[in-house]
Amino acid sequence: MTTWETYLAEHQSQFLDELLDFIRIPSISALPEHAADVQQAGEWVATRLAAAGAEHVEVMPTGGHPVVYGDWLHAPGKPTILLYGHFDVQPTDPLDLWTNPPFEPVVRDGRIYARGASDDKGGMLIPILAVEALLKAEGSLPVNVKFIFEGQEEIGSPQLADFMTAHRERFACDLVVSADGLQWSEDEPNLIVGLKGLSGMQIDVQGANSDLHSGLHGGGVQNPIHALVRILDSMRSPEGKILVEGFYDNVVPLSEADRALIAEVPYDEEAYKAELGIEQVFGEPGYTTRERIWARPTLEINGIWGGFQGEGTKTVLPNEAHAKISCRLVANQNPAKIAELLVAHVQKNSPPGVKVRARRLSDNADPYLMPTDHPGNEIARGVLEELYGKTPYYTRLGGSIAVCPLFLKELGAYTVNFGFTLEDEQLHAPNEFFRLSSFERGQRGYCMLLEQLGGLEV
Amino acid sequence: MTTWETYLAEHQSQFLDELLDFIRIPSISALPEHAADVQQAGEWVATRLAAAGAEHVEVMPTGGHPVVYGDWLHAPGKPTILLYGHFDVQPTDPLDLWTNPPFEPVVRDGRIYARGASDDKGGMLIPILAVEALLKAEGSLPVNVKFIFEGQEEIGSPQLADFMTAHRERFACDLVVSADGLQWSEDEPNLIVGLKGLSGMQIDVQGANSDLHSGLHGGGVQNPIHALVRILDSMRSPEGKILVEGFYDNVVPLSEADRALIAEVPYDEEAYKAELGIEQVFGEPGYTTRERIWARPTLEINGIWGGFQGEGTKTVLPNEAHAKISCRLVANQNPAKIAELLVAHVQKNSPPGVKVRARRLSDNADPYLMPTDHPGNEIARGVLEELYGKTPYYTRLGGSIAVCPLFLKELGAYTVNFGFTLEDEQLHAPNEFFRLSSFERGQRGYCMLLEQLGGLEV
Repeated sequence: MTTWETYLAEHQSQFLDELLDFIRIPSISALPEHAADVQQAGEWVATRLAAAGAEHVEVMPTGGHPVVYGDWLHAPGKPTILLYGHFDVQPTDPLDLWTNPPFEPVVRDGRIYARGASDDKGGMLIPILAVEALLKAEGSLPVNVKFIFEGQEEIGSPQLADFMTAHRERFACDLVVSADGLQWSEDEPNLIVGLKGLSGMQIDVQGANSDLHSGLHGGGVQNPIHALVRILDSMRSPEGKILVEGFYDNVVPLSEADRALIAEVPYDEEAYKAELGIEQVFGEPGYTTRERIWARPTLEINGIWGGFQGEGTKTVLPNEAHAKISCRLVANQNPAKIAELLVAHVQKNSPPGVKVRARRLSDNADPYLMPTDHPGNEIARGVLEELYGKTPYYTRLGGSIAVCPLFLKELGAYTVNFGFTLEDEQLHAPNEFFRLSSFERGQRGYCMLLEQLGGLEV
Repeated sequence: MTTWETYLAEHQSQFLDELLDFIRIPSISALPEHAADVQQAGEWVATRLAAAGAEHVEVMPTGGHPVVYGDWLHAPGKPTILLYGHFDVQPTDPLDLWTNPPFEPVVRDGRIYARGASDDKGGMLIPILAVEALLKAEGSLPVNVKFIFEGQEEIGSPQLADFMTAHRERFACDLVVSADGLQWSEDEPNLIVGLKGLSGMQIDVQGANSDLHSGLHGGGVQNPIHALVRILDSMRSPEGKILVEGFYDNVVPLSEADRALIAEVPYDEEAYKAELGIEQVFGEPGYTTRERIWARPTLEINGIWGGFQGEGTKTVLPNEAHAKISCRLVANQNPAKIAELLVAHVQKNSPPGVKVRARRLSDNADPYLMPTDHPGNEIARGVLEELYGKTPYYTRLGGSIAVCPLFLKELGAYTVNFGFTLEDEQLHAPNEFFRLSSFERGQRGYCMLLEQLGGLEV
């Protein structure tokens, strides 16, 4: 009898050829001239999904790049798992730093070098192959499965939120498993449990109706740059604590257990400082650097400008000044609410003599925090322990992944991040690569995970 | 017998023709292609000066545009007066806003329209013509006279300081009278007694060795923009008082008499606010707006930049931030000393986690304050009262005029500002003009002034 293990072992050569074909489609979502390629990649996924045994396979329009759906729903009484990944890729420039053309994959030393190999074509093909292996070996799956593969992850999934709202029923599930994620290293597994949200704002300060001569008007009128500097300086204490009233109100505090999990993750602060060329780390008192970056909200001025920026001296008293700020948020902060607090703070701290406008910018993201002991995480942990012989680290990211909070909001389901990319694989950079060992280990991991998820309480 | 009055009256037509010839030389000091024109204007001045009766006339090299010297030193026991003006002019763009070509003067409604008519060719020709009239009428002058006309005033007189140091003896005098100055209005005279100095600085803040992702590093490292904002905010109180330690130490305080003189000068604060489009004036508490602009030192951020300045959001944690500041200084602040205090303040207020560099910029100027009751001012006041039938206002300028403190420093002589330009004459702008009435009144004024200066105690 064929087991999924033997099926996988016998088909690695074919699977690799298929992945190379998939990679050859230059599905760069950011470049309009590649829109047809993104569409073609979606169709390739649909075809492969159907070949694997998925039903109701469909390339669904979103208003932008498409979403590919498929399902296998013949496990009554068993949980429904939504498997996520993306088939679009990053642009390739600077091209001259690549050792092979980015869409002509080369396999060398157990690695596939090509754009999208690791992020996320290798990753997203894995669950399709695992489902095929289980169906071929056993004729059925231990759980109900739905697939969602998107073609716009690398441009921030602009249509996905509306698309999910419109298709909530279709994607209803008990748990999401994302194939777009990282392990810690070749021999250390990882479960991402927290992601930060984002709320951005621009502050515009207007003084007189034109730039003024600082000799003729200095001492007479408020300088918009001084006013802006005062507003911005009022937002953070010298030590880095955010002073915007109410900012921390909804923050889920770090428990001792949370802090212990973060402390377990390897971290070399001296190496971090050396890498960045800084003499000391900096931030909110009372927390370690890792805690601040991973699990505490931050406020950063992203840009500032006003007046004269050229060589030498120009004794202008400028009539406008501008800044952009953005906050990285943690559970359970709300981007819209934070924007309101920021606007109120700006109003309250605006000096006299100028007009100040604070307006929210459109890029926003909700924070995400999945309980470490969520049954989905517990099952994933068991599988990773079996695959790696080690308990995974529980990590967080200071950045955002839009789909995790989106699925939680629209589907009421948490997302287990179960991907096999490694951080050194040149994501978004020249000479991106994916390890064949990860490709193969991921397939086994997904078969084991789906088997174990059959026992998930629903 | 010819008096200087009749001589002037009989020669106005010739003087006007000569002024128009002088104006036709496009002596724009800022544009290298006009360097020969500046030289030619200097030669024109030298020729005219000799024709007026001046001796030892010389076009002197400076390393840049030339200086024209001449003297008449046959009044033993009498004071020596150095008469100053400049024969270079501003550029002419935007050309399409001129109603006549800027170097083809047109006389219309009692005004000469042309570049340089008012600033300062009309003004600087006046003392030459007055000296000629006195010599023709009386055969001698009531004082010793030296002339200094420069060709680089409009570009900040870059070579003049070194030139004066090298020729101190040649220009030694008891008093300077500048023909580059303003009256208050057609029927209100004015004596400028104070000018501000200047000290400029750039602050550069360096963080990590490259721009960082605010999600991956926010909360871990100091943000150079936040650090810069903190430094800048520490320099002024919310009300506009400068908080740099020692900044006000050498400031000559405003006496009650000074304040009374300033209060006598017409000022409409509502009109000022309406003109600039601001809702309220702003500045150091305890002083009127005029006092702050004219007679109190100021510190202004002239420009600031760092990070992302484009549309939308870029969640960068930038690795550098920059600002330019400049201080307008009053007597007896020293630009170099103020720069030292600023550097010390920046060092003391630099937050941790970044490298901060503060460096002095090269444009500097000393402040200037001439006692209102200086004998030169007293004599000029008397002449102006006779010319206008009114006591002059004693005014100050928030801007700088380099030659006044320069002559004080190099020659030990104060400068009486005795010019007949009016503020509405479109200086440095299209359709600059000079009033024929000012041209003629100025000639009479200089004859009277030189006569009166014969009585100056030396």
